[in-house]
Parts: sequence; C-alpha cells; structure tokens
Amino acid sequence: MQKEIPYKIYLEESELPTHWHNLRAFMKNKPAPLLNSQTLKPMTKEELSEVFCEELVKQELDDTTPYIEIPQEIRDFYKMYRPAPLVRAYCLEKVLDTPAKIYYKFEGNNTSGSHKLNSAIAQAYYAKQQGLKGVTTETGAGQWGTALSMACSYFGLDCRVYMVKCSYEQKPFRREVMRTYGANVTPSPSTTTNVGRKILEEFPGTSGSLGCAISEAVEAATSMDGYRYVLGSVFNQVLLHQSVIGLETKTALDKYGVTPDIIIGCAGGGSNLGGLISPFMGEKLQGKANYRFIAVEPASCPTLTRGKYVYDYCDTGRVCPLSKMYTLGSGFIPSASHAGGLRYHGMTSTLSELYHQGLMEARSVEQTAVFEAAQYFARIEGILPAPESSHAIRVAIDEALKCKETGEEKTIVFGLTGTGYFDMMSYQKFNDGIMTDYIPTEDDLAKGFAGLPKINL
Amino acid sequence: MQKEIPYKIYLEESELPTHWHNLRAFMKNKPAPLLNSQTLKPMTKEELSEVFCEELVKQELDDTTPYIEIPQEIRDFYKMYRPAPLVRAYCLEKVLDTPAKIYYKFEGNNTSGSHKLNSAIAQAYYAKQQGLKGVTTETGAGQWGTALSMACSYFGLDCRVYMVKCSYEQKPFRREVMRTYGANVTPSPSTTTNVGRKILEEFPGTSGSLGCAISEAVEAATSMDGYRYVLGSVFNQVLLHQSVIGLETKTALDKYGVTPDIIIGCAGGGSNLGGLISPFMGEKLQGKANYRFIAVEPASCPTLTRGKYVYDYCDTGRVCPLSKMYTLGSGFIPSASHAGGLRYHGMTSTLSELYHQGLMEARSVEQTAVFEAAQYFARIEGILPAPESSHAIRVAIDEALKCKETGEEKTIVFGLTGTGYFDMMSYQKFNDGIMTDYIPTEDDLAKGFAGLPKINL
Repeated sequence: MQKEIPYKIYLEESELPTHWHNLRAFMKNKPAPLLNSQTLKPMTKEELSEVFCEELVKQELDDTTPYIEIPQEIRDFYKMYRPAPLVRAYCLEKVLDTPAKIYYKFEGNNTSGSHKLNSAIAQAYYAKQQGLKGVTTETGAGQWGTALSMACSYFGLDCRVYMVKCSYEQKPFRREVMRTYGANVTPSPSTTTNVGRKILEEFPGTSGSLGCAISEAVEAATSMDGYRYVLGSVFNQVLLHQSVIGLETKTALDKYGVTPDIIIGCAGGGSNLGGLISPFMGEKLQGKANYRFIAVEPASCPTLTRGKYVYDYCDTGRVCPLSKMYTLGSGFIPSASHAGGLRYHGMTSTLSELYHQGLMEARSVEQTAVFEAAQYFARIEGILPAPESSHAIRVAIDEALKCKETGEEKTIVFGLTGTGYFDMMSYQKFNDGIMTDYIPTEDDLAKGFAGLPKINL
Repeated sequence: MQKEIPYKIYLEESELPTHWHNLRAFMKNKPAPLLNSQTLKPMTKEELSEVFCEELVKQELDDTTPYIEIPQEIRDFYKMYRPAPLVRAYCLEKVLDTPAKIYYKFEGNNTSGSHKLNSAIAQAYYAKQQGLKGVTTETGAGQWGTALSMACSYFGLDCRVYMVKCSYEQKPFRREVMRTYGANVTPSPSTTTNVGRKILEEFPGTSGSLGCAISEAVEAATSMDGYRYVLGSVFNQVLLHQSVIGLETKTALDKYGVTPDIIIGCAGGGSNLGGLISPFMGEKLQGKANYRFIAVEPASCPTLTRGKYVYDYCDTGRVCPLSKMYTLGSGFIPSASHAGGLRYHGMTSTLSELYHQGLMEARSVEQTAVFEAAQYFARIEGILPAPESSHAIRVAIDEALKCKETGEEKTIVFGLTGTGYFDMMSYQKFNDGIMTDYIPTEDDLAKGFAGLPKINL
C-alpha cells in the first residue's frame, strides 16, 4: 500500500547518492565520439587534457563504467544545499482539476539559483586536485557562472567568467553575485580574446551567444598557465554530475512506491534533462521500465525539433572539437529571448543519440506561453520559476490538462531547475504585456545549416 | 548519547507545529497595552477592528492563551515551503577554527525570500475568512510586501502595498515580483493619501521610512470599503505567527539533544527575533532553562541600545495607536542604510518589555562590518544573506570568535531570516569599496525624542 505522500520529500543525508550514474554505460549505441576539428579523428585524452582537467577528461571519455564514485569532499559540499526537495504539486493539481499526479524536483534552493552547482563543485574540486590556479568558463543566463563562482570560492580557485552580453546587460545583479564570490566577469564577445575581437568585427553590436562565450573562455584558458576551461552543459562529464538530480528523484519516488509515466525537462545544452532522466533512461534501456521523456526547448532555438543530427562545432568561434549532435549550426545566433540558458545551437550528444533512437520526445514552446505558465505556477505553488525552468512547467501543465480530458491518472514528474529572481526584467516585459515571440524562419535555419562543417557531406 | 548531527535538519511534516506559541501568556509583567492616541485609554476590540481583521484583533489582545491553534488551511500552505531547515554550520565552524557549535535557522527558501511569509499567509487567511475584498500594507526592504502579495494571490485578495521610496528605487525588481503576484505597489510617501501629501510637504525629497509607509497604508485601508490594514512586524499577532520559527528550531534541537547557550537574531520591528526566541524565552520565564538572547540592530537605527522605553506612535503620520516600546521617536527618519527592513524607529512591545526586564541583550553593529560578515558567510556557507539577516551573522561570528579565545564549546543558534538576491545594489557598493557607515549623533537622537507624545511627561 502506498504511504501518504507529503508536500515535499526530503531524503535523509544517508539516502543521498554516493555514486554518479553514467548513462552512456547503459547505451548499446553509444554517442559518437568528439572529433578533432583539424584531423577529424576522435579526440584523444592528451588533446582534451590541454583544455580540460585530467580527471574530467577521464569522465568525458568513459562510456562503460555504470557508476562513478562521488569524492567525499564533493558529497560534503552537496550536503550544504542538497537534498533538493521532490515536491508533490498538490495545489497545482487542485487548481487544474486534473486526475494527474504532478511532482517536481526543485533545484533552486541554493544561491546559484539552479541545478548548475551540482557540476560546478565537481569541476572545481578536480581542478583543485590537479593543482591548478584557476578556471575559465562561459555563462548565459548567469546561473552557471554564479555556481562556478561559488564553487571556486569554496576551493580558493581563481574564476574568470565570460558572460553572454545580452544577459550581462539584462542581469546586472548577476554580475554582483559573482563578484561577491570573488569572480572576474567579462561581457562576451569581448576584446580580451582573438576570437572575441574577430566575432565583434564580423558582427558589430551582436548581443552574443553561448557559442561565442565558450570560444572566448577556451582561448583564455589555453593561453594562461595553470588554467583550464570548465563548462556548464553539453559535455558528458556535466551530465554525469547532474545525475544526482535523477538519482535523488528516483530514490524519493521509490520510497513512496510511485512510478512516473512522463518525465519532463527543459533542454538547452541538456545538462538538467540529462541528469534528471539518467537513472530512469538507464532502466528503460535495460527493458526494466517504460517511461516517456519529453525535452522542452524554446521555439526561438528549436535544436531537437528543427535541427539536424550531424557533426558540428560546439562553439561559434570553432576552437572546440566537433560533436555529433542535433544542431542549428554553430553560426546560428538565436534571437535575444528571455531564457538565456536555452540559447544554445546544439544538444549534448547523449540526448541527441537517445532522441535519434526514438527513446525521447521533444517539444518546442513559445516564450509568452512559457511566461503565462510561469506566472500561473508562481501564484499557485509559491515559487517564482526561472524562464528556462518554465518551459518544463508549460508542458507539464499541458500534459496534466490532457489527463483532465481523458481522465487518465498519469504521474508526471518535471524538473524545476531554478528560480527567476534575476529574471525580473523579463517578467516586467511580460507584466507590461510587451513580450513577443520569435520563431526562426526556414531561411534563418538555412543560414545556420550552411555553416555546418564539410565532414557531414 | 547524542546522535550524529546532519548538515541540515528537516523536520517531517508530522513534526511541524500545530499551534502557535503565545509568548505573552508566559510573562508575569505583560507588555503595556496599546493606547488610543486621542483618549489615551487602552484600545478596545471595537476600535482596533476598524483597522485590523477581527480574528487578528483577538490575537492581538490575547495575552493569556499559551498556545493558539493554527488553522488547517494555513498549515497546508506552510507545507509548501516549510519546514525551514536548521543548518549546522560545519563549514563556518571549521574556517573560524572555533570550538563553538553554530546553527542557523534558514527562512529564505521561499519566493518572498524571508520569514515574512509565515505571518502574511495567516493574515491573508483571516482577511479572506472575514469576507474582505483586500488588504493594504507597507513594505521596507520589500520582503514583507512580496510575502503578502504571494499570500493574497493564494487566497484571491486584492493587495495594495506602500513601499518605502528608497527601497522602491534601490530594488526595482522587488516591485516586479509583487506585480507578478498581482499586487499594486506605490512608492511612499506618495500623493495618494492625505498623510503622504503632508509628509511630502514637510520633508520634500524624503526617501521615506517604514513609519511613513504605515501611515499611508492605514489611511488607505480605512478609507476604502471591504479593506483592512495588515502589517509585517511590531504587533503581537505577527510575533505569534512567527513563533513557528522558534517552535521548529526547538523541535529540531530537542530531537538531537542539543541545548543552545546563545540565541541571536536581527531586530527591526522584532518579528523574526520574537518568533525565533518565543518557545525558548517561554522556558526561561518558567525557570526551566537559561538561555542568552541577543538582539542585533543597525548602529544607524539603534532602537534598543540608544532608544527610550516610553509610549510612542507606531507610525510617522501618527494615525496608529500608541505603543509602549523602546523608540527613537516616531519622527526619527533613519539614514538610507542598506538594511531597509531594520529602519524602524521602535521595537515590538513584547521584546521591549523583556529587554527592559533584563531578560535579553542588545547590540548594535555598523553596516560595513555587517557586509564583511555577509560576504564571508556567503563564500563559506554558500548562502548569500540579506543585509538584515547579516546583522545576526556578524554577532554570531563575533561570539564564535570569543569562544575561540576562551576555549568554550558554546552552542550558538542564529536566525538567518532571508536571502540577499534583491540587495545586489548594496552588495555592489560593498564590492566597490564605497559603502559608508552612519551613526546618528546625540543631536539627531534628541530631535527624535523631542517629538515623543506628551503622555510620557
């Protein structure tokens, strides 16, 4: 018999994960390897180690070990802000008058405001272990940069953040949070790197993109002694660390005998969604269970729903290796939408491969519909969500309303990746009724695809 | 034997308080009654009911019932964001290298960003029960206004907030959070009320104060049908609701066999501190235990440490009743410090009486020292605190450092009332090294005292 389910399930410290879940180990068809953009051969450990920390390179390339132990120091840090609650959305269910049962895993209860801290602390730890002076990175919405600043401050590492210019301008206070944690923040594209200067020359006045900022951060890391580049999404290592989201969710659901039917997450580079679905998808791949997974992306940057599954550069400046993924082309600069964290042209190779195999669905939503859901959710469930997270809320509500029509008592789980406290300028546009939607035309997409590397021909 | 103490103690839903703790019932010398400022006689239930909701008036006047049941609907709402964690500050202890054991009760894990929601939801509930259309209120730092907006949105009440002008300008995004919850926000002093116009005439260009904003909100409530005034601090009813903080803290400590030596809280009007210490002070008053309590206030608004214990107006416009309290005079307008929530000229009568009886200590701290503690805490414990809360952090650190000198293993508990995500303009000043301290001169204080009502002569 099912136990009565509380509003919020907090695991005990003793129930927290001791190992990350390495989803790739459960896949028969592995994601394609990263390629050196010059030689077109798989990136070696040595090549990757010029850019990334050694232990992280090992994790990046490991597609066979199913579980990887979380070092004790990282587990201790996790205890400062985890477990994240799994919330039963009783109030939302009631107001929607749906027979569906809705849960969300809330990752916003920490100062970075999102799930990003899960990987930031791991990457900072390995950088410290390697004896590095510091790390460089990019940030879009600012959540990753904040998370990394916190992690670096904890381990005494220098932290240099290239922040996408449109976010830097929309979110001046994000910069101050990072500065409070001792980080150095530069709006991107900037004149501090060769690639930044080149992009500014080619696209004067550009509001930047994650792809540009990645190029700058990589160049900065490789041109300074004792620095490496770390990143908040897209790469396998990040998905690995983010599996704590899914592991905690699964432990909490198992504890109460609940089996989800649909698992929903927003998807930019794929870190949150990949982490959330990891142990569930692992079971599905082993034929132990059958869940539906839905990736939600902005209609303004429709990577899975309108992109191509090919090799592409991870960054606009083309200093990174090639990754096989769903992509809009590394030259595609998305419109200045209010979900900065989802403005990325590609999708992590693991999720791309799973989507390609038909193991996952994808849906794109427009931003005014997303903010409607965000405001609705804030008023009913009390939490003011980040625009990124609200993509998942939108589809969770849509699915719950379908259940209302059909009378099905489905169990829906979604990832609430973070809070919107630094997104109030976006909310203001919505509150004032002046928010608009942007959907790229076929011509816009064709331009992005035209820049795909020739290897795909 | 003591159980091993986790980083964070989350109570089970079944352990949450079912009753509020009414501290006054445990006091032999009760706080002095509110007086009608015209007749100088104790305010009657009828008089108070013109301004406040009926059930709240009952609570305001009840100084004999030790425990008052929390209605089920309020307990259900509490479950959406409570229990608040009691955190063992292992990392802070380690970095300070102190034998002291430090705990903090963190009330910032909700969208209002603070403990204010505990009373907001109660007051909105009783307003709804009474069939009102809406409520009016003031807000300083914006936390109370946000909390009330959330509560009103939940119960479908109209919410009108008068926001102290200096906060309104320093925190534009606070306004947007309130608007997202459907509230109507006006900077105070404003031209929408008689008292606002009068204050503006007398002090053109004033940055406002809580005292002014209260006057405007009360006038607005009493001049509209179906409206009442609700407030976030100072009054007995608010302390009553905030006792959930102390009750949860005590249950959590008792569960692990921990007895605190010192309990510390920041004090503006006294709502957080009063709530935190409530059940502990109750025991002290019954001779069951002996705790030290420390109220921490800004040196720029030193109500307890430099004020007088006399009858005074609760508001600058003198539309409210008289309360016996430590006060700097209702005409005292504190300098525009960065802890807007502590810029109040008086202190709730219960805490004033306890302080007067020597049952509680008080300390004042300067804001640059407070921000140093805030930044230090953020980097070590991960949470970016509100400037108000950081007053308590400052003194908790000071006490822990004293233990380091003496070698005493004291147990220190402090209230971390909220997060500083909407205070980044203040942090920016601190980060840029341009924050200054303001301490009122004896002349400044004399001016405030000169305006005290004649009843005290």
